[in-house]
Amino acid sequence: MQSYPTKLLEQAVHELTRLPGIGRKTAIRMALHLLKRPAVEVESLGTAIIRLRTEIHYCSRCMNISEEEVCAICSNHKRDQHQICVVEDIRDVMAIENTNQYNGLYHILGGIISPIEGVSPQDLNIESLLNRIRPEGIREIILALPTTIEGDTTNFFLFRKLKPYEIMLTAIARGVSVGDDLEHADEVTLGRSILNRTPYESLLNRK
Amino acid sequence: MQSYPTKLLEQAVHELTRLPGIGRKTAIRMALHLLKRPAVEVESLGTAIIRLRTEIHYCSRCMNISEEEVCAICSNHKRDQHQICVVEDIRDVMAIENTNQYNGLYHILGGIISPIEGVSPQDLNIESLLNRIRPEGIREIILALPTTIEGDTTNFFLFRKLKPYEIMLTAIARGVSVGDDLEHADEVTLGRSILNRTPYESLLNRK
Repeated sequence: MQSYPTKLLEQAVHELTRLPGIGRKTAIRMALHLLKRPAVEVESLGTAIIRLRTEIHYCSRCMNISEEEVCAICSNHKRDQHQICVVEDIRDVMAIENTNQYNGLYHILGGIISPIEGVSPQDLNIESLLNRIRPEGIREIILALPTTIEGDTTNFFLFRKLKPYEIMLTAIARGVSVGDDLEHADEVTLGRSILNRTPYESLLNRK
Repeated sequence: MQSYPTKLLEQAVHELTRLPGIGRKTAIRMALHLLKRPAVEVESLGTAIIRLRTEIHYCSRCMNISEEEVCAICSNHKRDQHQICVVEDIRDVMAIENTNQYNGLYHILGGIISPIEGVSPQDLNIESLLNRIRPEGIREIILALPTTIEGDTTNFFLFRKLKPYEIMLTAIARGVSVGDDLEHADEVTLGRSILNRTPYESLLNRK
């Protein structure tokens, strides 16, 4: 049982270890680092954490985090309002936005179906996705979930739910990573990339 | 340039990346984790961090962190008040206390001499160590600094400063780790462990 010189340190270490991937030793290192920093800097860290959790809103349409009732992406009328890209979480929105290749809307599921982790369809923002299709006149839904078994399971679940709506349903391409040698791609990926080959000219038109 | 869905997230990620060993991706993962936790839990993390930095005191004798003017170790009269163990930082106090093998006092240098990192003797709590020796009637000082070049440099600097006081000056033993095969010990350590061999009977008396 570790003894701490003060309760304040013990408390801070205990709280820091609740962060993902932070064990006791790392938490102690962080706490001792904070002790050496200017008080104003540490206060601004503590305040930023608290404000993040207490002042954040979720967009009532796409479930992305937002400072307003409707997020900046959903309320941007320069974006295609009839196209929804379905993603697992906010990180995926940030990653796709960084590509500058997508100009539609998003819908954040808040997870993917995983019996092992106890995540079932009811835990995900699926109803709210279905409720958007008719009122918003959605024409295409792009499934951009992880290319894992859980992602595939969720894709198939959504496929069955979305079929009655008779809209275009697509999924992100799976294939050899850009910049990779073929020998480094795994067999399944390489096999798929041959089965789902694309017209060569479509590569030429992309930047 | 990463774009964030909200300023609150951007601010929290920016603050979290100031923690040691935390890059942008890890900070985003932490921030999204915090968003999923109950608000009361996140507030208690933020508050613990701020309180750690703003409410902490340093013991006026040994420079350990403390909730009082003098820390719990210095004010414990069951401990040997004439023995000081000199360590680099608070973590070392915690590590030595965990062994239950030491019952004297400590002095925290707050670092070790390192020209590369720009740490010179004036940056360390050396004057305050010297000022304790006569008034507290110190009989032994144990150097428990890292067994690195910087640690050795600091040891030698302290040795020269402490020599005039004519008190016992010792250093922690260096040798083969308990539980290790000899073949796993490096040459320098193994060589030292032979040079500084101890009477076999002294091993028998230890638990």
